[in-house]
Amino acid sequence: MKTLKILGICGSLRRASRNLTLLRYAQAHAPEGVEIEIADLSALPFYNADISEKPAAVHSLLTQMAAADALLFACPEYNYSIAPALKNALDWASREPDNHCLAGKPAAMMGAGGGMGTSRAQYHLRQVCVFLDLHVLNKPEVFANAFSASFDADGNLVDTKLQSLIVQQLEALQAHAQKLSQNGTPA
Amino acid sequence: MKTLKILGICGSLRRASRNLTLLRYAQAHAPEGVEIEIADLSALPFYNADISEKPAAVHSLLTQMAAADALLFACPEYNYSIAPALKNALDWASREPDNHCLAGKPAAMMGAGGGMGTSRAQYHLRQVCVFLDLHVLNKPEVFANAFSASFDADGNLVDTKLQSLIVQQLEALQAHAQKLSQNGTPA
Amino acid sequence: MKTLKILGICGSLRRASRNLTLLRYAQAHAPEGVEIEIADLSALPFYNADISEKPAAVHSLLTQMAAADALLFACPEYNYSIAPALKNALDWASREPDNHCLAGKPAAMMGAGGGMGTSRAQYHLRQVCVFLDLHVLNKPEVFANAFSASFDADGNLVDTKLQSLIVQQLEALQAHAQKLSQNGTPA
Amino acid sequence: MKTLKILGICGSLRRASRNLTLLRYAQAHAPEGVEIEIADLSALPFYNADISEKPAAVHSLLTQMAAADALLFACPEYNYSIAPALKNALDWASREPDNHCLAGKPAAMMGAGGGMGTSRAQYHLRQVCVFLDLHVLNKPEVFANAFSASFDADGNLVDTKLQSLIVQQLEALQAHAQKLSQNGTPA
Repeated sequence: MKTLKILGICGSLRRASRNLTLLRYAQAHAPEGVEIEIADLSALPFYNADISEKPAAVHSLLTQMAAADALLFACPEYNYSIAPALKNALDWASREPDNHCLAGKPAAMMGAGGGMGTSRAQYHLRQVCVFLDLHVLNKPEVFANAFSASFDADGNLVDTKLQSLIVQQLEALQAHAQKLSQNGTPA
Repeated sequence: MKTLKILGICGSLRRASRNLTLLRYAQAHAPEGVEIEIADLSALPFYNADISEKPAAVHSLLTQMAAADALLFACPEYNYSIAPALKNALDWASREPDNHCLAGKPAAMMGAGGGMGTSRAQYHLRQVCVFLDLHVLNKPEVFANAFSASFDADGNLVDTKLQSLIVQQLEALQAHAQKLSQNGTPA
Repeated sequence: MKTLKILGICGSLRRASRNLTLLRYAQAHAPEGVEIEIADLSALPFYNADISEKPAAVHSLLTQMAAADALLFACPEYNYSIAPALKNALDWASREPDNHCLAGKPAAMMGAGGGMGTSRAQYHLRQVCVFLDLHVLNKPEVFANAFSASFDADGNLVDTKLQSLIVQQLEALQAHAQKLSQNGTPA
Repeated sequence: MKTLKILGICGSLRRASRNLTLLRYAQAHAPEGVEIEIADLSALPFYNADISEKPAAVHSLLTQMAAADALLFACPEYNYSIAPALKNALDWASREPDNHCLAGKPAAMMGAGGGMGTSRAQYHLRQVCVFLDLHVLNKPEVFANAFSASFDADGNLVDTKLQSLIVQQLEALQAHAQKLSQNGTPA
């Protein structure tokens, strides 16, 4: 079985982001056969159709997306919807001719936020993925409370239930990706 | 009757944006007693909780929001959801203590996009407004097809039905704002 | 100040419904100047445009809606969306000429369900209310966990925080309705 | 290649439903290797947890669902959301132990309605399918205007673009189902 290369994309730009913590936990505990690289969105400008030449940070991101077999989103919730930095990364990707660097790929999402665990933002993100033609995993959903004892004072994820949920999600994504990539056709 | 000061916020940063066209049409044809100022989002950085000092562009936007009696959004649709530049402006606003510069104000939205007229983005934006405690007008909704003869070759809005729909929306927003501001209490 | 007549509509048909419990709590603890009547949806057929003569249960419901100054929804969540019995009641109402029995009225919603407190269903219901032209209260939102100690073994609401949240919502609905009904015009 | 058995479910109970027309068109023009059976929802009662014994109409529907390899929804839009008859059918299905009759199956949706082609209802239905663990096709989406010349006076679908879109959707569903059913595991 070929290694599954996942690109992790975190919607929060904060250094101490709990969403980034989730993604790093996933990276450090990826099942055998899964590798996770985390994109850096800090230098991406806002998408603007007037920018005719692709900025370097956009070029790098699209190269990473093209090389990835699957996407893993860490989705914060700002004002009941998606964080602009995450949405903006996807908007740059969709300008590509035929949306070719994402279409048909498997994806999963997780998020840390208030009491609803960013669910409101995650359902908006799922609608975005319909247009991008990403095949988003249904279950398990990962909803973390960023303001709870799930994280210790240094911001580490210490909740064992969440820890194993993340690993389960990666395993489910791996199985999902394997099904979608059958027959030699791209996912 | 006191003049209603509306702040127009356009989610597209393109110079030739059809969404900006809608907003400018509204500005030029505002009913008596209504004044529309259009915010400039081009210098706003992405919201980041690590930015402790408020950037100048954020300060200007929040000052405009605080001075406005109502909000008018020109809402593009990117990948079936809200444009990051628009969402980001609102995310900066909501960091204010108690969300005081927006809470309780009346608002309306319009948009130009593909065949659905940005409706998918507008319903996401309505959910954002629940958290922000904006009182969004239900009707009329304004959905424009950006790729149709509604706009001429120079990008002007020439569809008379849309033109009058925009004026109707402003009149409805004016009436809505008047009701909400009764009793000397802020809207 | 005129009494505010609220019609409560519960989306669950179960006798021991936790959503009905919330509505009954509201009814028993309505602030001065507020009266709550609870609709009975048990005999409503599914909406069907082929049914030319209005069934008696539909007629009764529409009469109650017409007489109400405001609506209060107890919104369960089934499969991440609205309960059919609640949606169906609203669909019957909207067939009325010009949606006259609901348009412009203030409304609020609450719900008891799983860990998200029926929030996924409530945001769908808010979108429905845009079409119906109901003015839905933004805050406070009421999300109850039906499977927690918020309810005792007999199904009574015993969580004091939720109890006062419900009363706060009724007070906010009363204030909201008062604003919207200014000027002698219907809300 | 094994025949793909699709169960079609129409959310409108009207005899002359345009949504039913779409489903019948799909049935009559299914690609080789695809068979479509259409469920009858007319005798289903509203879901109610107090109904302990499964009504006959529910039993029949669940039997059809269990036998189907894939689902095809004809999704009307009532008041910007899902028709209760369609949602109710899914709610009955989800009561089954472990949601076993639907989980993991591929699905697609289409709809005829006003100018937005039932898109608002379809995105709500997609959220429902997350919980049900249905793998919904992203593209092509099928949005028909029920009040246009797409349908003739007798209610037949005569728009050739829509006709071929429906066939394309069935072909895409067939390919999607084939991928998901690889490896001898159920879809």
